[in-house]
Formats: sequence, C-alpha cells, structure tokens
Amino acid sequence: MQTSLNITRAEFRQRAERLREHLQAHKLNGVVLFDNAYIHYFSGFAFIPTERPIAFVMNAQGECAMFVPRLELEHARMQTGFERVAHYVEYPYTPHPMHVLARLLAEMGIAQRIGADGDGYPWIFGYRGPALSEVTGATVVRSAAFIEDMMMIKSPAEIALIKESAKWGNLAHRLLQRYTRVGATETEVSLRASHEATLAMLETLGPLYASHSLHGDGASAGYRGQIGRNAAIPHALANNITFQPGDVLVTGAGAPMWGYHSELERTMAIGNLTDEQKRLFDHMVALQDLAIRSLQPGARCSDVDRAVRAYFEQHDLMPYWKHHSGHAIGLRYHEAPFLDVGDDTEIKPGMVFTVEPGLYAAHLGGFRHSDTVVITDEGYEVVTYYPRDLASLTIPA
Amino acid sequence: MQTSLNITRAEFRQRAERLREHLQAHKLNGVVLFDNAYIHYFSGFAFIPTERPIAFVMNAQGECAMFVPRLELEHARMQTGFERVAHYVEYPYTPHPMHVLARLLAEMGIAQRIGADGDGYPWIFGYRGPALSEVTGATVVRSAAFIEDMMMIKSPAEIALIKESAKWGNLAHRLLQRYTRVGATETEVSLRASHEATLAMLETLGPLYASHSLHGDGASAGYRGQIGRNAAIPHALANNITFQPGDVLVTGAGAPMWGYHSELERTMAIGNLTDEQKRLFDHMVALQDLAIRSLQPGARCSDVDRAVRAYFEQHDLMPYWKHHSGHAIGLRYHEAPFLDVGDDTEIKPGMVFTVEPGLYAAHLGGFRHSDTVVITDEGYEVVTYYPRDLASLTIPA
Repeated sequence: MQTSLNITRAEFRQRAERLREHLQAHKLNGVVLFDNAYIHYFSGFAFIPTERPIAFVMNAQGECAMFVPRLELEHARMQTGFERVAHYVEYPYTPHPMHVLARLLAEMGIAQRIGADGDGYPWIFGYRGPALSEVTGATVVRSAAFIEDMMMIKSPAEIALIKESAKWGNLAHRLLQRYTRVGATETEVSLRASHEATLAMLETLGPLYASHSLHGDGASAGYRGQIGRNAAIPHALANNITFQPGDVLVTGAGAPMWGYHSELERTMAIGNLTDEQKRLFDHMVALQDLAIRSLQPGARCSDVDRAVRAYFEQHDLMPYWKHHSGHAIGLRYHEAPFLDVGDDTEIKPGMVFTVEPGLYAAHLGGFRHSDTVVITDEGYEVVTYYPRDLASLTIPA
Repeated sequence: MQTSLNITRAEFRQRAERLREHLQAHKLNGVVLFDNAYIHYFSGFAFIPTERPIAFVMNAQGECAMFVPRLELEHARMQTGFERVAHYVEYPYTPHPMHVLARLLAEMGIAQRIGADGDGYPWIFGYRGPALSEVTGATVVRSAAFIEDMMMIKSPAEIALIKESAKWGNLAHRLLQRYTRVGATETEVSLRASHEATLAMLETLGPLYASHSLHGDGASAGYRGQIGRNAAIPHALANNITFQPGDVLVTGAGAPMWGYHSELERTMAIGNLTDEQKRLFDHMVALQDLAIRSLQPGARCSDVDRAVRAYFEQHDLMPYWKHHSGHAIGLRYHEAPFLDVGDDTEIKPGMVFTVEPGLYAAHLGGFRHSDTVVITDEGYEVVTYYPRDLASLTIPA
C-alpha cells in the first residue's frame, strides 16, 4: 500500500466547520475566497493563479463548492471531493466569469452579507472584471483576519508535513555544502544538489508525493545570489557566480510537502573568515539563540523582535540591521504573524516560525541562519537540525 | 567584454515618458504601481512579491521613484538607477508602510488624483493595510487598462529576449525527448533535461544572465503531470509517474530571459498511437495551423478563436474542447490579450501570442502543442521551432 502524508478529507471538513461557525457568528450568508492559499486551506485544491478566476464558496449551511474554469473542472472535482463544482467556459468570454459566480452564489442562497478575502478577483495576468459587491448587490465583509488567525495555529498533521519538509531540505543542503568548492559555479552546485535530493526524496516517499506549491516541485538548495559582493543584499535574485576563496555564502533550502514549507538557511564560508567577519558571524548565532529562546507561548511576537533589537543596539550593530527576526510559515513561505516589533500577536502552541535575524555589511558579507521552529505547550521545538557552528559550515579554500 | 541582453535604461526611460503622457492626458498628479510585473516593466526592478509592499511611483513631471522595505534598498538602487529610492523600516512595524508611502507621495507633489493599479497593496502572505485613497485622501483612478495596452506591444528588444528564451526552451525540450523512455520517471527526465540545458545556457550567455522571473531560474522542460490517465487535465500539478508504452505526453519548456518568457509545448507519444488518438493528434495540428494562419495584423483576437471553434464544431469535436486558443506572453507567462471569442482586441505588430488549441479525451489523452508567435507588419513569425509532426515526436516503446 502506498501512503500519502497529505491532509485528510476529515481535516478539511473540520476547517470548513470552523469557517461555518464564523459565518454564523458574524451573520454572513456565505463566504467567497479567491486567494490560492485560502482555497487550498479549505478545499485541498492546489493551483497556480492566473487570469482565470478560481474561488472557494461556502454557504451558511456549510455546503462547500468550487468555482473554476472549464479547464480545471475534473481536476477540482478530483482534488476536493466536493459535490458542487461550478464552472465557467473561459476568461475573458461572455458572460464574464464573475456573472457566472453570481449565479452560483444565488443558487446556494448566498446574498446580502457575504464574507470574502477581497471584493472581487485580483487584477493579475491581464485579468479585469467587476467587483463581487457589484455582481451580487451584496455587502462584502472582509474575512481575511479570521482566516489568517485560523491558519496561524497548525494542526499535528500540518506540523508533520513541515517536519517532513525540513528533512528533505536538510538533505539538499548537505549536498549543496558537499559540492560547493572554489571554481565551481553557484548554479551547477545548486542544480546538482537539488536534482539529487529530489530524486532521493521521490524514491523514498513514492509516486504519491505532491509539492502542491508555487515554490518548486521538489527538494532544493541554493544561494539566491548571496555570495561575495552580493551577500549583503539578503533577497537579491540569483546570478551565476564562481566560488572564490574568502566568499561568505548565504544559502536557502527546503522541500514543499503537499503545500507546506520549512525554511533552512545557513551562512557558510570558503576558507577562513577575517576577525571582523568572525565577530559578525558569532553575533548572528547569538542573536538567533536569543530569538529562539524568546519564543515562549504567552509571549508576544513583538517581544522576540524587541529582544533581538536590544541586542543589536547594545552591541552597536544597528548599522548592520536590515529586517525583523522572522515570520510564520506554512502553506505560504511567508505568513502572519511576524516576529516584528509592530506585531503584538500572542505566541501560541501550534504556531510555526522561521527565526532569522541577520547582519549585513557591504564589505564583509551577509550573515544569517534561518531555522524553522514549532511552538509547543512547554516552549518550542527547532525542527531544522543542520549544524549552525562555523567549523561545520566552513568549506576548505 | 561581457554583454547583457537586458532592456536598456534608455528603453525604461521611454516607457516612463509614455506613462507621463498618460498622466497628463488624464489630469493625474502621479501614479503608484504595486503589481510586480508593472514595476518590473517601468523600473527594471525584479522581485518576488511578499507581505512587504513595494511600489513604483511617478509624478506628473516624470520623476520616477521606488518605494521598498529597508531590506531591498541597495538592490532597488542598483537595479533601477533611480535617484529617489524611499524605504520603510519593516512590515508590520510602526508606522505602517502605507503611511510612509503617503509621505513619499506628498514629497513628490502627488495628491488629489492618483493613477494606480489598485487601491492599496494586495492582501497577500498575511499582509493587511489601509487603502491608498485612505492614507492620501486622494481619488484613485485605475490605470491598469493603459498599462496592459502598452505592455501588449513588444519592442524589438523585448522580442529579442523572447526569441532567446525560445532557443533555450528548445534545447531543454530536445533533451527531455531524448531522455524520455519506458521505465524512467517523469521527474528524473525533467530534472536531467532542465539541469543540462541550464548549464549549457549559462556557459553560453555568461554570468550576466538573469532570469528575473518568478517562473524559474534557468531553462526547463517537463511534463506537469500530463501523462497517461492525467493527460486529459491540461493544468494538473505534477506527480512523479513512470513512463509506459502507449503514454500520450504533453510537455512544456522555456527559459526566462531577463524577465521575458516564451512557451513551447508538444504532444509526444511512447510507441504508436491508436487510430482514434492519431485522429485527435491530426485535428490538433490542423487546429494549430488554422489558428496561426489567422493571426494577421488588423484581425481581432476573437476572430482567431472563432475560427478554431468553428473547426471544432464542424468536426464534432466540442466534447474534447476545454479552453481558448492562446494568450499573450511577455513579462508574465500569461497576459492580455487573449485568443478568446470574448476578446475583441485588434491584433497588431509587436504582439506576441502562444497558440495552443487543445483536445482532451478522458480515455485517449490530452493533445496540445503550444508555439510562441510574434505579429509582424506583414503577418506573423513563429519563434519556437521544435518539430510538430507525430513521427518526430514519437519515442520508441
């Protein structure tokens, strides 16, 4: 028997039931969700957003339906198991998909007060169309806050997927480090490590494995351009650079697992760091330790970032500061809440965060580790387990 | 000397000048763009959208500016060359980034009537924030139609990038076909073909090559799950399936080139098709021929799709129909206009379309080729050149 780690239909039904309670509490006659992460969360339907609108719909009785283009009809039926999967012919076409959606809502008794993540489908990929309030005449109430709050607390099955993701990210990263050497290029090393890790993962998990993510189809590890001169720019897009002695490297690795993500990032060095670089590396590890220890249920997200920033200030490191301490992760590789002085969300068991304070200096490099941490009843569990010490992360020059 | 095929600063300035004329004509005091494709188009700044808002801003005098988080400051300066790059500290933080944006707009004299692609930053990745009209008190006018119309007509430099993309997509596809054989898995073949094609491309184009795309960092070719039983679902997400005799395979290949895309898709067969499958394959090629021949400057997009649908009906093929005949392509892999009976946009020189009518039958498979076609003064040029005939696309069983 082949097994799938995917979220069960029963769990999707539980999520829908909580959404139905929200509709009831707020006197909403139904809800329409256009965001692909929200749709995935409530229906299991994973897709790549385009100009063709797709929506998850539920009425006050808890009946769930999908709204898709003809192109996705069988796919949506198969992935959701919903009895009601309505479709429009095409976009642009006539009638416009939003008018077909309005008919579906009327059929399901959804009128007057509708919860939604936005008043219509976003204008992406050349899509244009009327607002939801316009085609229904209803008052559209934003339900994003409720949904975000719900998605923040991961179930045991979601946490299991994030841990499985961390495992294969670890393999990809191990291979990345093994193949990185002076004279090789970033791309050849990243491709080889990702390629081999993905094949090993698929042989292990079997053909039922599904990425269900917009962020890649398998395990991957790479450098995102964060090498040498570029290292101080944390989110630079990749270029293909040849490794040289003295490079400070910031990596990233992961493996989407039925839509769920983990994050593993390491600062590696080719040859010995200078004393000044070593000082920044050590501060970075100390900052990450501090942030991880601060992740206690009952604390606030802002407390963690405040502790990190206090350390930055205490050690005169603010010139090297660029971003907050981390963010939640799950179906999206960034999501709320954020480990940021501006986010007072209470930290609760079931939340999953990346912890990644970074130091960036134009002539020394970028210094950042990122680990994925699950909040438990007692405290926290770090689910990425790649070594963090400089000796383990130094590649011979 | 190393060369870059990227769009020149001069061309970005020309685009900005046309946008300035639009502001003048519509009595707008400035424009704010949040969409990553629009920002890329007017500034050259390529980035991955997250919960941290980024915007391109221009005032009525034509002064261009970027608005970014601290994290992206150096990156945005380097990529755009703009003198004014404003930044906020972080998201969520206090003050909220939208209030920092409002200050930038005030400094640039942008008030009262503002063009924008949406009234605020979209609520993605857990972002929440006020509308643009709310933080500025201005009337926000949607400028998306003007920008979409402008992006539809590609310059010679844009077309050169799309042709370069087609070349490396062709290599990846050639390797994909070479390595596909009974007993191999979809993923191992896709990874090997993409890996080798990317390395060859990087060795050829040199280290200045940049993908600048959300859709991959190099050349790629793969199957997107469109194999055997799944073949009738055109946009199914990938699963890792082992090739078997009798499989009908629908492929996809491309290579982002400084943000620009081409599209190459082929229907391949392992062993001989049945007569019924062969009949659908032949109809598919005939439909694609018909659609390509219909792509004449002065015709309408709807004319092409109408001709295709007339053929479907004439040959009793409507049960196999699922989607329109194609779409424009450029900085986004799908964009307006669409080859759809609902899109009456006039076809003009400089437009670039995918042409991909498809036939889908649950027990026979999916049948679709997609080629990238540039509209010229005289007619059209097909820039993807992979063979389309069944003999060339049959893999020995």
